[in-house]
Amino acid sequence: MATPSYRRVLVVAGLGKGSGTGASTARVFAKAGYSVALVARGADAVHTLAKELNDSGGEAVAFPVKSYSNEDISSVWGDIRSRFSMPQYSIRAAVFNIGYGVWKPFLDITHEQVQESLQTNVAAAFSFSREAILDFKKNDIEQPSGARGTLIFTGATASLRGNVVTSAFAAGKFAIRGLSQSLAKEFGKQNIHVERTGPLLEKHPDWETNADIRLDPDNIAHSYLYLTNQHRSSWTWELDLRPAHEKW
Amino acid sequence: MATPSYRRVLVVAGLGKGSGTGASTARVFAKAGYSVALVARGADAVHTLAKELNDSGGEAVAFPVKSYSNEDISSVWGDIRSRFSMPQYSIRAAVFNIGYGVWKPFLDITHEQVQESLQTNVAAAFSFSREAILDFKKNDIEQPSGARGTLIFTGATASLRGNVVTSAFAAGKFAIRGLSQSLAKEFGKQNIHVERTGPLLEKHPDWETNADIRLDPDNIAHSYLYLTNQHRSSWTWELDLRPAHEKW
Amino acid sequence: MATPSYRRVLVVAGLGKGSGTGASTARVFAKAGYSVALVARGADAVHTLAKELNDSGGEAVAFPVKSYSNEDISSVWGDIRSRFSMPQYSIRAAVFNIGYGVWKPFLDITHEQVQESLQTNVAAAFSFSREAILDFKKNDIEQPSGARGTLIFTGATASLRGNVVTSAFAAGKFAIRGLSQSLAKEFGKQNIHVERTGPLLEKHPDWETNADIRLDPDNIAHSYLYLTNQHRSSWTWELDLRPAHEKW
Amino acid sequence: MATPSYRRVLVVAGLGKGSGTGASTARVFAKAGYSVALVARGADAVHTLAKELNDSGGEAVAFPVKSYSNEDISSVWGDIRSRFSMPQYSIRAAVFNIGYGVWKPFLDITHEQVQESLQTNVAAAFSFSREAILDFKKNDIEQPSGARGTLIFTGATASLRGNVVTSAFAAGKFAIRGLSQSLAKEFGKQNIHVERTGPLLEKHPDWETNADIRLDPDNIAHSYLYLTNQHRSSWTWELDLRPAHEKW
Repeated sequence: MATPSYRRVLVVAGLGKGSGTGASTARVFAKAGYSVALVARGADAVHTLAKELNDSGGEAVAFPVKSYSNEDISSVWGDIRSRFSMPQYSIRAAVFNIGYGVWKPFLDITHEQVQESLQTNVAAAFSFSREAILDFKKNDIEQPSGARGTLIFTGATASLRGNVVTSAFAAGKFAIRGLSQSLAKEFGKQNIHVERTGPLLEKHPDWETNADIRLDPDNIAHSYLYLTNQHRSSWTWELDLRPAHEKW
Repeated sequence: MATPSYRRVLVVAGLGKGSGTGASTARVFAKAGYSVALVARGADAVHTLAKELNDSGGEAVAFPVKSYSNEDISSVWGDIRSRFSMPQYSIRAAVFNIGYGVWKPFLDITHEQVQESLQTNVAAAFSFSREAILDFKKNDIEQPSGARGTLIFTGATASLRGNVVTSAFAAGKFAIRGLSQSLAKEFGKQNIHVERTGPLLEKHPDWETNADIRLDPDNIAHSYLYLTNQHRSSWTWELDLRPAHEKW
Repeated sequence: MATPSYRRVLVVAGLGKGSGTGASTARVFAKAGYSVALVARGADAVHTLAKELNDSGGEAVAFPVKSYSNEDISSVWGDIRSRFSMPQYSIRAAVFNIGYGVWKPFLDITHEQVQESLQTNVAAAFSFSREAILDFKKNDIEQPSGARGTLIFTGATASLRGNVVTSAFAAGKFAIRGLSQSLAKEFGKQNIHVERTGPLLEKHPDWETNADIRLDPDNIAHSYLYLTNQHRSSWTWELDLRPAHEKW
Repeated sequence: MATPSYRRVLVVAGLGKGSGTGASTARVFAKAGYSVALVARGADAVHTLAKELNDSGGEAVAFPVKSYSNEDISSVWGDIRSRFSMPQYSIRAAVFNIGYGVWKPFLDITHEQVQESLQTNVAAAFSFSREAILDFKKNDIEQPSGARGTLIFTGATASLRGNVVTSAFAAGKFAIRGLSQSLAKEFGKQNIHVERTGPLLEKHPDWETNADIRLDPDNIAHSYLYLTNQHRSSWTWELDLRPAHEKW
């Protein structure tokens, strides 16, 4: 990988409790030399992770948000751009890891939960994508990847299969898959790489202790880094991941 | 087909200008003996189609709605139930044909259009499905189909493939595909048949005049009637339709 | 359906023990007025079914074959053409229902079984398709379907998903899916309708007695007749069928 | 990556003219420290590539074969095992890159070409897989990948879509996709990683000179190496690759 004159920046949105895919992505990219902008609701988790990354020699800035509304997402991207501005920095990767899951029989899902699923899973993805792509379009083409930037959506089994108790979640995840495919086709021609990566699994009883059936967030994060470095002659849109012993 | 003691009722929502799939579905089911509840915005089109069906010997009632909000959809189903009540009537088929299409480069799509796409294409589908399924669950199992009721969603190419200029539309149509698959799995076990049927095509220049490349709404409607009559031993979840000469 | 001056002919290959999809297809099409050419190994089953159809007022001719080799399939189509020749007859539908299933752990499958699977499931499908299409190309376009002829392949769950113990069977069924899609695209433009129809199911313990979980061959056969009659403005390539209570 | 006490061995079958995916895979794995067993028809190309790899500090052995018959594939694996035996060596990766393409209108494809496609694309893949898996089963689980071995099949657009002029090729490539999915499910539980990787593209007029539209074999090869190193907690079955500017 060529060393550019600027520091690459990763924007990652959605950090959960700080132990999942979003946080692992921040850690793996920080270790690979990226500065990291951390976006999430829940200021505590964001600040804790930022401190951890800074303490271990990386550069991370916390950008807590009140909500994932269009206004708040646009606004936080403005802050990120001010903090990580050219020529010192260049935003090169953006990971949409925000997810709102409802697992209930269809008739138990309320109208409010359907709304929350559509706003958090889908509308927020549109807002986040818009800001990321506006930034990437201004970037030059990096070598050797040949990319201006990489936009990754975290998927799930529900991106590909609706199932009993997943109607609202699957609707949201299917929608993001449609969005990501549209964006991959529209912006691939502008050397912007758009992907959907999906852990495909069901949780087993001995999930915590068995590496053959647990999907380790750090390894998901490594796949994100791999996708970010893929050469433009062979880009992947969709990368599904399963533990070795998963039944499917 | 056994003749039941009640009249079967079709509820169809989304009628466009009265010349597309929704209107054809109403006509084909009316001809097959169904009473028809017509739900749409645009009172004129609904009343015109109701009159046409009644004049030609069918039974149709117009249920114009102000919007496809959750409240308005719940409310109109209340009206439909009052008008078509047991033991004289039984609601056996429901077709969700409502669609809001935006075909624009991604960066030209406004936040309001994303919202409108999610509300009209997806949230309204959740509301409509809920009401239909609540009704179907009360029905007995009809012979020979073995179904309590059939719920059909009109799909499109964008249900299966995101494309340049279809990000918002594809997100909505992918979401409905996820919803319909979840419902098919959850309610198949209760003998409620859920399907997504999709015309897959691109419009050609001589679309209007060439039967080999035009997807005729009447024939789509006939496929809906076929699906409604499928025997429970062999139900289809997804039926895609293309003109014979379509390039794909 | 318009009544043509000729009798429509169905060619169906693969009859198993006379109680499955192939035999049901012959019965359903015979009842719908088709003359039927029955092709299978196992002369007894073919003659028994031909007699049954003729006794119940239909017209059926047994064409037993020694093997499903390219030579034997070409040769039997020559015999069928002689027997059912214009202007009295017109071959309008062809169903490839031949299948060779091996369900074994991969390492227990012998090279001979791989060969048998490829020859019976795939090579025979190429030979059969070639003969059917050569005939259909000579047909005029029938009204109202707008088709010169319809070629249907019987699929299975293994057409869409490889699984433990299905490596050889899935390879064969996947191959036919690829073939059928290629043919649908190449010959749709010539008004020849090519489809793959698939029962998707796993056998349950109370399979025989429970109509909610048994996939009834007669209903599969009705779907074949439906596909044959679809209007060219809305053709289906792939129709999957599942019992209502199937878990998927 | 932990350094084991043995040298890892890659077996790659199918080298074309020495300038495509097979040869690039050999080069990339050799550079990463693998010894390489080169299997192909055409002794000249195999020996030339072996010499190139040995001259540049790698270790490669040529294993030319007369044909891709079951006998010749079994026999050559016997030779490979003798040459690269424990405890000095361990066969850890196997790439099936053999392909036989026919691009012709369906009616122009001869029965012999169908046979050649089934034997070379599919039957040879069964034979090759069998030998690779028998070897992998004897391996210990390597750290950190958690794999006993990795088996990769080179795919193509025709693995996923049949098209006009690809009936025989698509049948073969679809079949391998079914095989690879079956093997991934059966042997994932034994920590054997099975994948299908596919360049998805159509050749453009300025293919040779434009890195945005050319699928570079070296980058495909890098994806093979990445897949081989994936941690068992997040394995990919299917990885599709497209040039950034590819229209799809």
